[in-house]
Amino acid sequence: MTFSVAVSGASGYAGGEVLRLLASHPEVSIGAITAHSNAGSRLGALQPHLHSLAERELTETTVENLAGHDVVFLALPHGASAEIAAKLPEETLVIDAGADHRLEDPLVWEKFYGTVHAGTWPYGLPELPGHRERLREAKRIAVPGCYPTSSLLALTPGFSAGLLETQDVVIVAASGTSGAGKSVKVNLLGSEVMGGMSPYGVGGGHRHTPEIEQGLSAAAGENVQVSFTPTLAPMSRGILATATARVKPGTDAAALRRAWAEAYADEAFVHLLPEGQWPHTKSVQGSNHVAMQLAFDEHAGRVIVSCAIDNLTKGTAGGAVQSMNIALGLEETAGLTHQGVAP
Amino acid sequence: MTFSVAVSGASGYAGGEVLRLLASHPEVSIGAITAHSNAGSRLGALQPHLHSLAERELTETTVENLAGHDVVFLALPHGASAEIAAKLPEETLVIDAGADHRLEDPLVWEKFYGTVHAGTWPYGLPELPGHRERLREAKRIAVPGCYPTSSLLALTPGFSAGLLETQDVVIVAASGTSGAGKSVKVNLLGSEVMGGMSPYGVGGGHRHTPEIEQGLSAAAGENVQVSFTPTLAPMSRGILATATARVKPGTDAAALRRAWAEAYADEAFVHLLPEGQWPHTKSVQGSNHVAMQLAFDEHAGRVIVSCAIDNLTKGTAGGAVQSMNIALGLEETAGLTHQGVAP
Amino acid sequence: MTFSVAVSGASGYAGGEVLRLLASHPEVSIGAITAHSNAGSRLGALQPHLHSLAERELTETTVENLAGHDVVFLALPHGASAEIAAKLPEETLVIDAGADHRLEDPLVWEKFYGTVHAGTWPYGLPELPGHRERLREAKRIAVPGCYPTSSLLALTPGFSAGLLETQDVVIVAASGTSGAGKSVKVNLLGSEVMGGMSPYGVGGGHRHTPEIEQGLSAAAGENVQVSFTPTLAPMSRGILATATARVKPGTDAAALRRAWAEAYADEAFVHLLPEGQWPHTKSVQGSNHVAMQLAFDEHAGRVIVSCAIDNLTKGTAGGAVQSMNIALGLEETAGLTHQGVAP
Amino acid sequence: MTFSVAVSGASGYAGGEVLRLLASHPEVSIGAITAHSNAGSRLGALQPHLHSLAERELTETTVENLAGHDVVFLALPHGASAEIAAKLPEETLVIDAGADHRLEDPLVWEKFYGTVHAGTWPYGLPELPGHRERLREAKRIAVPGCYPTSSLLALTPGFSAGLLETQDVVIVAASGTSGAGKSVKVNLLGSEVMGGMSPYGVGGGHRHTPEIEQGLSAAAGENVQVSFTPTLAPMSRGILATATARVKPGTDAAALRRAWAEAYADEAFVHLLPEGQWPHTKSVQGSNHVAMQLAFDEHAGRVIVSCAIDNLTKGTAGGAVQSMNIALGLEETAGLTHQGVAP
Repeated sequence: MTFSVAVSGASGYAGGEVLRLLASHPEVSIGAITAHSNAGSRLGALQPHLHSLAERELTETTVENLAGHDVVFLALPHGASAEIAAKLPEETLVIDAGADHRLEDPLVWEKFYGTVHAGTWPYGLPELPGHRERLREAKRIAVPGCYPTSSLLALTPGFSAGLLETQDVVIVAASGTSGAGKSVKVNLLGSEVMGGMSPYGVGGGHRHTPEIEQGLSAAAGENVQVSFTPTLAPMSRGILATATARVKPGTDAAALRRAWAEAYADEAFVHLLPEGQWPHTKSVQGSNHVAMQLAFDEHAGRVIVSCAIDNLTKGTAGGAVQSMNIALGLEETAGLTHQGVAP
Repeated sequence: MTFSVAVSGASGYAGGEVLRLLASHPEVSIGAITAHSNAGSRLGALQPHLHSLAERELTETTVENLAGHDVVFLALPHGASAEIAAKLPEETLVIDAGADHRLEDPLVWEKFYGTVHAGTWPYGLPELPGHRERLREAKRIAVPGCYPTSSLLALTPGFSAGLLETQDVVIVAASGTSGAGKSVKVNLLGSEVMGGMSPYGVGGGHRHTPEIEQGLSAAAGENVQVSFTPTLAPMSRGILATATARVKPGTDAAALRRAWAEAYADEAFVHLLPEGQWPHTKSVQGSNHVAMQLAFDEHAGRVIVSCAIDNLTKGTAGGAVQSMNIALGLEETAGLTHQGVAP
Repeated sequence: MTFSVAVSGASGYAGGEVLRLLASHPEVSIGAITAHSNAGSRLGALQPHLHSLAERELTETTVENLAGHDVVFLALPHGASAEIAAKLPEETLVIDAGADHRLEDPLVWEKFYGTVHAGTWPYGLPELPGHRERLREAKRIAVPGCYPTSSLLALTPGFSAGLLETQDVVIVAASGTSGAGKSVKVNLLGSEVMGGMSPYGVGGGHRHTPEIEQGLSAAAGENVQVSFTPTLAPMSRGILATATARVKPGTDAAALRRAWAEAYADEAFVHLLPEGQWPHTKSVQGSNHVAMQLAFDEHAGRVIVSCAIDNLTKGTAGGAVQSMNIALGLEETAGLTHQGVAP
Repeated sequence: MTFSVAVSGASGYAGGEVLRLLASHPEVSIGAITAHSNAGSRLGALQPHLHSLAERELTETTVENLAGHDVVFLALPHGASAEIAAKLPEETLVIDAGADHRLEDPLVWEKFYGTVHAGTWPYGLPELPGHRERLREAKRIAVPGCYPTSSLLALTPGFSAGLLETQDVVIVAASGTSGAGKSVKVNLLGSEVMGGMSPYGVGGGHRHTPEIEQGLSAAAGENVQVSFTPTLAPMSRGILATATARVKPGTDAAALRRAWAEAYADEAFVHLLPEGQWPHTKSVQGSNHVAMQLAFDEHAGRVIVSCAIDNLTKGTAGGAVQSMNIALGLEETAGLTHQGVAP
C-alpha cells in the first residue's frame, strides 16, 4: 500500500525538492502537482531535473485539487498556506513548508509578519527534545525554516544540558541562493551573486530570529536572546551556520563535547564529526544529513559550533519528508539519502 | 541475495562516486574499499559526503584485497588497471573506469598512451547500437571516458542513420573540474578556476579523440574524423558537449529529429528534450540521465547537438553501475536515480 | 582640456562598465548619467562598485540631457539607440554599444531584428584590417557585439591571409552571464546558473551570426558561413571562443602561426600567447586585453583558435573607449588597463 | 622622478597583486621581480594576467637582487621575511606582506608562530587612529593580515568612541580562496570549494586572532577579547566580515552611526554606505575600497557591522601600496582604483 501525496507550489525550489525526494520514496505515489501562475505547464518545462515526472501537468493550487490525498505538502509563499490548510480535511496529513504555523506566540507572529496568527502546529524538527513524539500521528506539521533548522540543531544540546549562557548568543549563517526562492530580483541574478558575498536582513529584523529564539528558549527553559545575521553565499544550495555562545563557568571542553555527542548519538541524520574535522556544506548536498563540529574557545569563553545542512533538503523538503515518515508510521529515513552529492 | 563488490581507487572522485551509488544500490553489499597512499584512513576523512560508509577503513589496492568479490571496480590512474585486472579471477566481474581497455586498435593506444596495449573489453555504453548485448554476462567491462560518453551519445544516431558527413565533425565540450581528478595542480585550484574558462589539450592531442572517433566510425561504417576541443568550466560536475556535423544533402530537420528520437525512444536514461528546450548540466547533476537537444542550422548545413551529462555519474560511475546491472542480469536502472539535484 | 562625456543606460551592465572605465580616464569628464526607469536614483544604489560616482544622480535618457557633450555613449536595448542617435548633433561623437548600426546589409538586419535598418556606422574593432583608419575622426561608431569581437579577432588573420576554407567554420563560445544583461529572468538567477552550463540560441538563429559572417567575409573576400553556438557559463564575466576552420591544402602550422603573429604584432591589446600556453578568461578580467592561442590539428585538417576576452571590457565598454580614443585623437590605450584582475 | 621597486614572492597571489597595482602606478618603476622555486621563469607563464610584464624574467629572492631599490615588497611565507629584511639597507623602504613584524608582544608571537619574534614595525592600516602619522617617512612597514584589516576597520570606531563592551566580541568572516594562497592542497581544489562553504581554524587558534585583539585593544584602551571564526567561501577574492559587539548601556543607534561616520568621514577608501544599503564583496573587487554598514540590534543589545574588502587589494597589496605612498610622501591614492570590477 502506498500513500497518495499532493504537492503544491511545485514550480518553486521547495516544491521541486519535495517532488525530487518523493519520486524516489518507496511508499508514496505522487498525485496532484499544483502551482499558481504556472498551472497548465508540463513539469519538465519548469523543473527539468525531475525526469521521471517531466510529462506531468501542473494543475491549479485549489482545495479541490489538493483534497482527496493522504498527504498534502504546502510549499507556498508565507501567509498563503493558512487559508488553504484550514479547508483541507482533518484526516489529511498537511505539511506546511511555509512559516504560517511555526511560531507559538501570536504577538511575535504579528510583529514580524503583520497578519493574524493562524495557529501553531507540531514542529517538524524531530531531533529536538520531545518533538519526535509530537509528530507521531500528527495531522498538521509546520516545517522549520532552513536557518532555524541549522541554528537549533547547532545550539540546542548546549542549552538542554544547561551549559550555555542565554545572553550574547551570536549566529552568522551563510546560505546558498536557493534559500531566497525562485524570485526574479536583480540582486539574485547570477551576475550579481557569483564571486561575492553580502549580508541581508541584518539587525534583528530577520523573520527567522524569533523562530530560533523560540526553540533555544524551550531548550534552555528561559529566554534566550540571539543576534542572527544571514549572508548570501555564491552557491545554489547549502547553509553553513556558525553559532557561538558563552559557556557557563566551570564547563570544560569534554563536557561540551559530551553534551552534543549524547544529544545526537541515536540520530540517523545528525552527525557530530570526529574531532578536528570540520563540516563542509557540499558533503551534505542533496542529502538529509547534518554535519556538525564544535570547539571550545577557552580564551574567549565561548563555544563555537559549525553546522552544515542542505537548505532545500534537511532545511526544507527533507525535513518535511522525514516528518511525514514519522507521522505516517513509516521508517524515518524512507526516501531520504545519507550520501551527499560531492564534489 | 546480494552481490559483493570491491571498489579500488576509493579516495578519488571516480571511486567516491562509485561508492555513493553503490551505497544506495538495493542488490549489492560493499566489501573491500581500497586505495594507494590513503590506505589505512577512515573513508569519512577522505570522502566526507559518504556518511553511511564514514567509519570504513581503506585497505591497500592489491589483488588479494580485491579478489573474492563478485564485482571489482577499478578506478585507478590510466595504465594501472591492466596489471591488476589480469590477476583477478576470470569469474569476477571487473569494471575498469580507466582507459586501458577501451580502444580497439593497439597502434592507436600506443600512439596516445605510449605503453603496450592491454586488450579491448566490452564497452560500457549500452545505448550505442549492439553494445547492450555485448555487456550481458560480460566479465570484463571498459567504462567509456566522460567526454566520449557525451560525444558518442550526441552524434551516433545521425551516423547510424547515415545522415551525416564523416568529415569536419567538430565537438567542443565544457567539463566541470572533477573531470580532471583530485590532482593537486595549481591550475585546478579554486582560486584559478572560479570565474573563468580555459581550453586544454587542444589540437588533436587529447586522448579522448581516438575513443570518440572509434565509436562514431563504428556507427557510420567508415572513418569519421573529429576535431575535439575540451574546455574547463567553473563548476565541479557536468559536461556540456556541443557537437556539430555537416548534414548530407537532402536531409531535412524532420529526418534528423526522427533519427535521434528513434535511437533513444526506449532508453531509460537518454532523454531528447521537447523541441525548443535546451539541456542544462545541472538538470542531470548526480543522476544517470542524459539531456539532449538538436537543431538543424540550414544556413550552415550542419546539425548542432547539445548533450548534458554528469561527468562523474553517467560519464563514469553511473555508466559503470548501469553496465554492471546489465552484466549481472539486474534491472538496468537499479541504484541509479532519474532526478538531478537542482538547483 | 578634457572631453565631456554622457553615458546613457547607466543602470545596466554595459553602461556601468563604460562608467567604470571613464572614471579612470585621464582625458574625459563625466557629464550626464542617464537611465530609463531608474532616473532619479543615486548611481551608488544601482552600481555600488562605482565608488567615486556614488552620489551622482541619474537623469532621464533624453536627447536634451545627452546633447551638449563632446561624446555620448548609448548603452540601450537593441533598437532604441537609432532614434536618439538621429537627433544628436552631427559634431557629437556618438558611440552605440547596441546593435542598431553594426550590420551593413539592410535585409539581414530586417531578417534578424524585424525592424527598419537604421544605417551602418564605422565598426569599433580597430584591430581588423582597415578599421582603425575608418575610426579616426569618425563621429558615429558602432561598438561590435561581444561574441563578434572574440570570434572576429580569433579567425580574421587566417581569412585575411587566405589560409582558411570558407565553409564549415564552427565557433562555440562560452559567455559569462553579464552578457545577457541585467534582465530579471528565471534562467539567469544565480541558483540556476551556478554550477552548470547550457547552450542557447542554437541553430543559426543567434543575432550575432550575421555580424560574425559579415566580418569574416570581408576578410576572406568571399562569403564565409559560420555555425555559431553560444553557451552560458557559470561566471559573471568573460568569453572563451573556440573557433575552428578547415585549413587550405598546403598550409602548415608555421604558416598559420605566422599569419596570426603578424596580424597582431603591433597591437596593444591582442596578445598571441607563447606556444603551448592557452588563454584563460580570468587573465583578461576587467582589462581590454585579448588572450589568444591556436593549434593546427593536422589529423582533422583544421585550425583551432582559442580566444579569451572580458565580454564587458574589450567585448563592450573597453572596445568602445578604445574606439573613442582613436576618434578623438587620443592615445589609443588611454583609460584602459593592460592587467587582468586575477585570480 | 620615479621610485624603483623590487617585488619578491612574485609567483604567489600577494606578489602578483602587488605587481598588478604597481604596473599602473604613475610614480614607480618595477625593478627586480623575484621568486624562489620559479626563478628563471617568464612572469607571463605564472601570472598570465600581468600582460605588460609578461616577458619579465623572475630572479632568485636574494638580498643581492632586492637591494639597490628604493622600495622592496616582501610577499614571502610567514617567517621568511625577517631574515631578508634584516639584511636590506636601512634607507630602503621595506614593506612586509607577511606576519613577521605585525605583533607587538613577543610572547604572543611565539605562542602562535613558535619562533623568535623579529620585532614590530609600523602597521600599514592608516585608517586606524594614529597610524597614518607613524607611516610617514617610515622605512619598515608591516602590512596587516586581510582578516585583521576587515575586522579592525569594522569595529575600531566603536571602541575608539567607548561605545562597546570589550567582552563577547564575535567576528565571523568569509574569505575567498585566494586568502589561502597558491598552495596546492586538496581542500583548495576547485572541485572541492565550488558550491560549498566550510569553516577552518576554529576555536581561537587562528593566527589572526591576536592581531585583531591587539588592534581593538589599542582602540579601546583595555583588553578586548574576540571570538573569531574564518570560513572559506566559493569565490576567488573578497572578505565579508560580520563583526558584532555588545553595546554599552545608554548608547543608541544614532550615536553608533555617528561614531562610524566620523571615523571615516575623511578617508578616501573607507565608505560607510547609506542606511539600508549593505556591502557586497564584488563592489570592491580589485579596488582598494572598503564598503561598510552597521545596524543596532536593540533586541540583542548588539551592534552588527558588515565590512567588505578585497582580500588581495585592500587586504594585502592595496594596503601595502597605500602605505608605501604615505611613506614616500606621494598622494595616498596613487596607483589605486576607487571602482570595483563588477558584476
